[in-house]
Amino acid sequence: MNNGFNESEREAVYRVIRERRDVRRFKSDPLPPPILERILNAAMQAPSVGYSQPWNFILVKDLIIRRKVHEAFQRANEEAKAMFPGERGEKYASLKLEGILDSALNLCVTCDRNRFGPAILGRTCQPDMDLYSTVCAVQNLWLAARCEGIGVGWVSIIKPEELTALMGLPEGVVPIAYLCLGYTDGFAPEPELKTAGWLPQMPSDELIFYEQWGKKEA
Amino acid sequence: MNNGFNESEREAVYRVIRERRDVRRFKSDPLPPPILERILNAAMQAPSVGYSQPWNFILVKDLIIRRKVHEAFQRANEEAKAMFPGERGEKYASLKLEGILDSALNLCVTCDRNRFGPAILGRTCQPDMDLYSTVCAVQNLWLAARCEGIGVGWVSIIKPEELTALMGLPEGVVPIAYLCLGYTDGFAPEPELKTAGWLPQMPSDELIFYEQWGKKEA
Repeated sequence: MNNGFNESEREAVYRVIRERRDVRRFKSDPLPPPILERILNAAMQAPSVGYSQPWNFILVKDLIIRRKVHEAFQRANEEAKAMFPGERGEKYASLKLEGILDSALNLCVTCDRNRFGPAILGRTCQPDMDLYSTVCAVQNLWLAARCEGIGVGWVSIIKPEELTALMGLPEGVVPIAYLCLGYTDGFAPEPELKTAGWLPQMPSDELIFYEQWGKKEA
Repeated sequence: MNNGFNESEREAVYRVIRERRDVRRFKSDPLPPPILERILNAAMQAPSVGYSQPWNFILVKDLIIRRKVHEAFQRANEEAKAMFPGERGEKYASLKLEGILDSALNLCVTCDRNRFGPAILGRTCQPDMDLYSTVCAVQNLWLAARCEGIGVGWVSIIKPEELTALMGLPEGVVPIAYLCLGYTDGFAPEPELKTAGWLPQMPSDELIFYEQWGKKEA
């Protein structure tokens, strides 16, 4: 296998990483099945601890189910709002945080904690590595969707136990991500919460250390 | 921002996803600083819950520290081996599982659980979303490195509390990934554990469901 990527290939990789967004505004156009297949295939090419491939993908189109998920979001969001008092709460309430009903497709990505278990290579002293493998699959899917012009939004304001019940997950399978997928009128130039002034961008020199936590020079 | 990627850009994105590998065999050539900067920048462009950017990156070159990390690996690996009895244990022992000392650079990616806290948008009922954001940064970094011809290996056979001590992490900061980075003679055509017959590839029709767990048709 060729190690090298040429300059235009590298630029495409950096472009998709740079232009990926958490999308909450969707058009209802359906996703063509071959494109959906490519995106799911990208997810399944993620790294997984001990090659355990702990992920599953539940494609949710049914509006009856989606309405129930949306109600679960609304309940959790009411509780969440209360945690942001005053002006912060007003700003919180003004943000669009999900596209459960208006996206073309919902997708629940789960982690089977018993797959090929109990002993998984690489998970012996870090038991949550299977959850992290599943997140790597989500990120692959997110990037693949972006290069297809498809937006993805991760809805984390739903109680996991409600998702577990709504998706009919068996014992030992946990929901990791509930995603909304669909075409969109536009990908924002920068993260919406940055633009909205919700939180500032961290300066990179506060994020990179050398040899030890806190050491800012090599 | 343009929604579309052309065909060659899309192919580059799918190529990097398909050809990313968990690398354990490294050349010692140093990583050029501008390339390292691009890779770290890609990590920092990951999605983060509520734009909380909970990640830090500790670049570890010092061989004294790396030897201590390697000893922590060896201790955890001795315990791990005991969990794979018989033939499985012999196979386990034959696998190269890390490149801590022979890679150009080690990188510890951490998650600051209190950054911008306590209330983080999107983390109010799923408190581990910050850990998942940090994993998204790891996957971005992994893909960016691959398109630069740089291999990355994730070493998860180290006890987190030992990593915490060795990296000098303060209260509330947890290690997520300990990575080895470096140039390599080659990226394997498929995951090494698949080639080695450690575990089989999961058939995709067992991984994709419709509307509910277990439903195999739309």
